[in-house]
Amino acid sequence: MELYLIRHGIAEAATDDIKDEERQLTKEGRQKTEKVARRLRKLGLHFDLIVTSPLVRAKQTADILMAAGLSSQMEECTHLVPDGHIYSWVVNWLEPKNFAPNTQLALVGHEPCLSHWAEIIVWGEVKERLVLKKAGMIGVKVPETGSVLGCGQMFWLTPPKYLL
Amino acid sequence: MELYLIRHGIAEAATDDIKDEERQLTKEGRQKTEKVARRLRKLGLHFDLIVTSPLVRAKQTADILMAAGLSSQMEECTHLVPDGHIYSWVVNWLEPKNFAPNTQLALVGHEPCLSHWAEIIVWGEVKERLVLKKAGMIGVKVPETGSVLGCGQMFWLTPPKYLL
Repeated sequence: MELYLIRHGIAEAATDDIKDEERQLTKEGRQKTEKVARRLRKLGLHFDLIVTSPLVRAKQTADILMAAGLSSQMEECTHLVPDGHIYSWVVNWLEPKNFAPNTQLALVGHEPCLSHWAEIIVWGEVKERLVLKKAGMIGVKVPETGSVLGCGQMFWLTPPKYLL
Repeated sequence: MELYLIRHGIAEAATDDIKDEERQLTKEGRQKTEKVARRLRKLGLHFDLIVTSPLVRAKQTADILMAAGLSSQMEECTHLVPDGHIYSWVVNWLEPKNFAPNTQLALVGHEPCLSHWAEIIVWGEVKERLVLKKAGMIGVKVPETGSVLGCGQMFWLTPPKYLL
C-alpha cells in the first residue's frame, strides 16, 4: 500500500469569531492547492480513497483533490484531527489487511501529526526531522502484511513550490 | 546550509571490459537527467557548488547539472565514491564552519551511500528507509553551527519521475 500524507492548504487565522475547526482556506491557499492538485493529476497520481480530517480547511483541501480527478471516493475520519493519535488510527483503521494490495491511499490532515506519523511509520519514533509545508505531501510505501510501524519506505517528500 | 544529495542517472552495466568506475550514462540516463536538470533550474534552484564522486557516471551527471546552469563551480571529492565514509567526509570536509551561511551545496554520488548519509544527518543512524532513485534527490537543511549528524531537517525527497 502507498500512503500519501497531504497537509491542508493555507487557511485563515483563528479569531474570537472563527473557531479552529471552522477555519477556511484563504484565496491564496485555495489557488495554490488547486495548482498542486492539477500537477499531481498530470503526474499520473490517482488515489483509491481520500481520507480527510473533518476540519473545514482539510475537507476543503480534499474537495479540491477530488475536483481535480485524483479520486472518486472520499471519507472523513476523526482520527485525522490535529490531536489525533496514530496508534488508535493505525490499529483500528489502517491495518493493511483492511485494504487490497497496492492500494493508493491519501490522507488529508494537519501538522505536526502528519509528519510525526510518517516518522513513526518509517522509523518507528518521532524526532521532528521532516518539514511538511501546507499543501505539501509525504509518500510512504507500507508493507502489505504485518505492522506498518517502523517498516515503511519513504519515497517522496515535497513542498508545494516544487509542484507548481 | 542546504544539502542536495543527487544520485547519478541510469548507467550502462559493468562488464569484463568496463570497470565499475568507467561506467557511462546510457542514452536514456543522459536524456532523463537532462530533463531533471532543466526542471530543477526552472524551479529556481542554484547551487553554490556541485561536489561529485570521481566515477564517470557521477561526473557525467554533474556535468549535465552544470550545463543546465545549476552551478558555476564543480569539484570532485573521493569521499563520495560508492564505499565512501560519511564520518570522514563530514568531519574533514563538510563541517558547516567551512561554508558561508545559507550555502546551497549539491553532492552527486551513489546508492546506498547517499540515502544512508541522509539518514545519518537527519536521524543519526542508518535504517535504510529512504528510496532514492537514479537521478532522484534528497534535500536536507543542516544547522549552521555544531554537528550536522542527527540534526538535519529533510525538506525534499523526490524520484526523477516527478521532475520530468
